[in-house]
Amino acid sequence: MNTPSRPCEPGGYVFDAALMLRASENPELLEGHTHPSWANMVGPYGGITAALMVQAVMQSQCLAEPVSLTVNYAAALKDGPYRIQARAARSNRSTQHWLLELTQSDRDGPAVMATATLVSAVRRDVWRRQDLALPPVQAPETFEPVILFDAVEWVRRYEIRLIDGGVPAVSDGSERDSLTRFWLRDAQQRPVDLPALAAMSDAFYPRIWLRRAGWVATGTVSLTVYFHASTQELAAVGSQHIYAQARAQDFRHGFFDQTAHLWSRGGLLLASAHQIVYYKE
Amino acid sequence: MNTPSRPCEPGGYVFDAALMLRASENPELLEGHTHPSWANMVGPYGGITAALMVQAVMQSQCLAEPVSLTVNYAAALKDGPYRIQARAARSNRSTQHWLLELTQSDRDGPAVMATATLVSAVRRDVWRRQDLALPPVQAPETFEPVILFDAVEWVRRYEIRLIDGGVPAVSDGSERDSLTRFWLRDAQQRPVDLPALAAMSDAFYPRIWLRRAGWVATGTVSLTVYFHASTQELAAVGSQHIYAQARAQDFRHGFFDQTAHLWSRGGLLLASAHQIVYYKE
Repeated sequence: MNTPSRPCEPGGYVFDAALMLRASENPELLEGHTHPSWANMVGPYGGITAALMVQAVMQSQCLAEPVSLTVNYAAALKDGPYRIQARAARSNRSTQHWLLELTQSDRDGPAVMATATLVSAVRRDVWRRQDLALPPVQAPETFEPVILFDAVEWVRRYEIRLIDGGVPAVSDGSERDSLTRFWLRDAQQRPVDLPALAAMSDAFYPRIWLRRAGWVATGTVSLTVYFHASTQELAAVGSQHIYAQARAQDFRHGFFDQTAHLWSRGGLLLASAHQIVYYKE
Repeated sequence: MNTPSRPCEPGGYVFDAALMLRASENPELLEGHTHPSWANMVGPYGGITAALMVQAVMQSQCLAEPVSLTVNYAAALKDGPYRIQARAARSNRSTQHWLLELTQSDRDGPAVMATATLVSAVRRDVWRRQDLALPPVQAPETFEPVILFDAVEWVRRYEIRLIDGGVPAVSDGSERDSLTRFWLRDAQQRPVDLPALAAMSDAFYPRIWLRRAGWVATGTVSLTVYFHASTQELAAVGSQHIYAQARAQDFRHGFFDQTAHLWSRGGLLLASAHQIVYYKE
């Protein structure tokens, strides 16, 4: 595969550039290349890896829409090529269960860098109720776009209008609530779809940095996203701002969990996401 | 494998009987048999399948403790034998990433009935904070044990002392909050451990039956459990009652998500669990 010289084809979206997966001779195997525009401190942003898993399934013999995704981050990807194996472990009439493995080759051969499971299913127009309402919040235009933290590239891929819960200005170990709330959208105003929603679900910096006002080495171990919105519903959201909030529940033994929810401006719950994150000390 | 004639060896626990996995010639492959005491409406209780995934890893070359589990229910298991393949896709110094597949054979050969991913990791004694406190609740002895619903066998494996949110007595379609709260423990007072905690995370009946007061065909599609408690902490809980609550967030397109939390009587958060559930109409 050619090393991509983009970050951005004329008129193209950097998000789509990062999601380019090439078919191989093996129909279960797709080939891709890390994209510098989505770099995190070490390796790519976890959200772009989650999006890649969704993309890989949607490019495969996927009969329906992703409903549920779990990505396990086994090691930090290196800049360079990777392969994603996407296998339908079981296909029922209206549901498919996918197993995915992302590998990169080193001296010892291919090494698993991430695994995932994804359930795709036919969405049907049945009884519906949304119990988790959009919290009362002022319009996105009320808040200024910010760069949440300067050290990484991927945060520039989003327009984030922070409401509260930014990275503490002073790292003094003072404790506070771990809630962060913001409006966000793709910085290029690319319309949201299911892979983009997966990526946005991870757009929060590690809750522990906020909770105890200080930097600690962290890494997401496992991320689960439930896609409440259909492709059709996301098309109606388009490039409008999305309200997102995240909070942690428990920090113990070097792992904490954080829960995120994303709503459309109109109040539709788009996704729930949960992750468990390693922290060093 | 011999069909188990137990439900219960003298002095033994039915939970352990259901978790008996036999090694095979292939070190990645374990063999088991469904247990009638844990039957659900169709196939076994989802919680016992979750526990089996944990058990399979703990019986394999697992270097550390399960921290995170996602089980995907691809089809209802049939009563009979099954195999679990547990493969460490990646082993780092202090973390292992497992991929699991549970298969049963039919005329066409082995079919995948469930898949799972599990992250096991070394727990370390570092900075800790529990932000999700045990809600104010009266002692378990204040409430009478109940059978939540009579149609299935597995509910008899738990002593459930319902606080509120039982199955509505009248199926009249009336709407209400989907919160259920109870104290629970193993009916045989088997002390809790990580597999048992996985099973208990699924001990709630489908939230939609409560939310709209009526029976609808449902099935868990994917269950994620974060184990906050260590084996050592669970040993201290032993056979004491565990406080558990669950609530749904969104019902749409034939899928809803429900979140559960489990605390020790002393107030320690033991597990967070999230699941997405299919509903028919």
